[in-house]
Amino acid sequence: CDPEAVAAARAHQERLTKPRGSLGVLEEVAVRLAGAAAVSPPPVPAPAALAIFAADHGVHARGVSPWPQEVTQQMVGNFLAGGAVANAFANQVGATVRVVDVGVAADLPAAPGLAIRKVAYGTADLSRGPAMTREQAVAALEAGIATARELVEEGARCLVTGDMGIANTTASAALICAFTGRDAAEATGRGTGVDDETLTRKIEVVREGLRVNGLLREGAVPGLDILAAVGGLEHAAIAGFILGGASLRVPVILDGVIAGSAALAAAALAPDVLDHCVAGHRSAEPGHAVALAHLGLRPLVELELRLGEGTGGLLAHPLVCAAARVMHEVATFDSAGVAEKES
Amino acid sequence: CDPEAVAAARAHQERLTKPRGSLGVLEEVAVRLAGAAAVSPPPVPAPAALAIFAADHGVHARGVSPWPQEVTQQMVGNFLAGGAVANAFANQVGATVRVVDVGVAADLPAAPGLAIRKVAYGTADLSRGPAMTREQAVAALEAGIATARELVEEGARCLVTGDMGIANTTASAALICAFTGRDAAEATGRGTGVDDETLTRKIEVVREGLRVNGLLREGAVPGLDILAAVGGLEHAAIAGFILGGASLRVPVILDGVIAGSAALAAAALAPDVLDHCVAGHRSAEPGHAVALAHLGLRPLVELELRLGEGTGGLLAHPLVCAAARVMHEVATFDSAGVAEKES
Repeated sequence: CDPEAVAAARAHQERLTKPRGSLGVLEEVAVRLAGAAAVSPPPVPAPAALAIFAADHGVHARGVSPWPQEVTQQMVGNFLAGGAVANAFANQVGATVRVVDVGVAADLPAAPGLAIRKVAYGTADLSRGPAMTREQAVAALEAGIATARELVEEGARCLVTGDMGIANTTASAALICAFTGRDAAEATGRGTGVDDETLTRKIEVVREGLRVNGLLREGAVPGLDILAAVGGLEHAAIAGFILGGASLRVPVILDGVIAGSAALAAAALAPDVLDHCVAGHRSAEPGHAVALAHLGLRPLVELELRLGEGTGGLLAHPLVCAAARVMHEVATFDSAGVAEKES
Repeated sequence: CDPEAVAAARAHQERLTKPRGSLGVLEEVAVRLAGAAAVSPPPVPAPAALAIFAADHGVHARGVSPWPQEVTQQMVGNFLAGGAVANAFANQVGATVRVVDVGVAADLPAAPGLAIRKVAYGTADLSRGPAMTREQAVAALEAGIATARELVEEGARCLVTGDMGIANTTASAALICAFTGRDAAEATGRGTGVDDETLTRKIEVVREGLRVNGLLREGAVPGLDILAAVGGLEHAAIAGFILGGASLRVPVILDGVIAGSAALAAAALAPDVLDHCVAGHRSAEPGHAVALAHLGLRPLVELELRLGEGTGGLLAHPLVCAAARVMHEVATFDSAGVAEKES
């Protein structure tokens, strides 16, 4: 984050024809974008590109989700056919959609819009031991970094995180507990819809995963090892996507709880990357609020979404653009001949 | 609201390739749009047109705002020159901007984008007696209705309310108290930025206005008379704009506290118009939350904006479109070959 650009952005905000502070949270977004881009006014971050990282989870075998594992693969087909909610939202905000197979438990046919960067056919069961080897976690991080670079080379000026992976809120809950020290019951939620019995089991599975991987004591294990132990391949890829976006000074809009938990891993590896992140929304999943509080990020959209795919991040994109656009298009009191407030 | 379209929209939502309820508040928005349009799926409400109703306020003389009254007129010039935040946000969401003079305290030169529908050179001081005559309130309502009709004839498929009027949060607070029975201290806020002393005076002025106009007892006075007694010309025009949009079955996105208080007046005249309204955002002004609760509307954007002009309503437009777009573009479980949740 560039302190000169931050100061210039704040000073510019004060001269614009609007009462001071009247754009609320969006003023901070604009200042943040300026700091991240190291220039004020910051570029309007458009067009956006959504990357949906898809992967499967060994922990699915523990009965933590009511959805069959095959839905991961089927939804990839749905994204590629343009039929998912993420596609509709991407159309709404003018974003492109890239699907990245980093760990789907099946071989996917080649298709336009699909990048095969498969690290494994899903993770191992995090409740019985490490979900990934260190090497797998690094390979998935690299897949995310490469995706960020590719999308920016193709013209994206904003990256939006997306995910698809049946059972991936279980891995997110475990990551959030490990990085924040919170108990499994506080960070584990109903995901895309589990009943009370399944929720109880899911919490126990998260707790087992933390215990078996030696993660019940906060701070005892390096971030990369936490990621490998209880993360998913898409979590690791999203962490890499954040690192990649930040290194290119392109803003990254985080979607929901998957992205929030991945951002904790990215920040453990390189804390400064958070300067380049905007929290797109806050999902209904309780762990997401825990993650955002720990990251110090304020979400822009709070509409009780709990879908994933990048949907909440996409909805935030016009808001982020609006915040930046103000810095380019709005007149100053002097230039517009508008009187200022009498103090 | 059409119950068949509502039922059809709900049934359609359940077949879409997403977990039930996972779009949170946006699912209700889509159902609401279907009911209002009497068809499912409802049309995507684009393009939008913003109407900024501008007027001055006799109560400004009581020192309720730190801004000179001339700023109303100067900001009209800023809107017409494209230099205000509302212009930047309209550009972002692809909306047109119409400025409507319903009561600016000066003669404005003709300009493209400006409609002169002036009812008076500002209102009388609401703290000393009625702000408007009944005839003036009706004329301003008609100006709003005519504006809605004109914009829809020109192609708008969504109307966004906007306002400009130094001291208009004082009139809003008085309207909210009169329509909801709340005390002035609960509904009066700092507007675009008043200090503690001015806030205390502002609350007292609102209370005087309610007392002198016989509005301290809820339900004693018809809605139109309340509007005339303590409303502003832009409040009356926005109430008419809502009536006009509803009568044409075009959704109306409400901006902040000015729109919220105007919607209370519109609902008092014709309660069904609320079916056609979407609360775009919740502003930092305390009376706005009171008004929205009374109206039973849930705001889409909550970013502590307190600018007015229609800025919060514009930011909500892509969210409303996204909600409708899902109903057109997202595949069903059957058509996409995606397995459903095991119950």
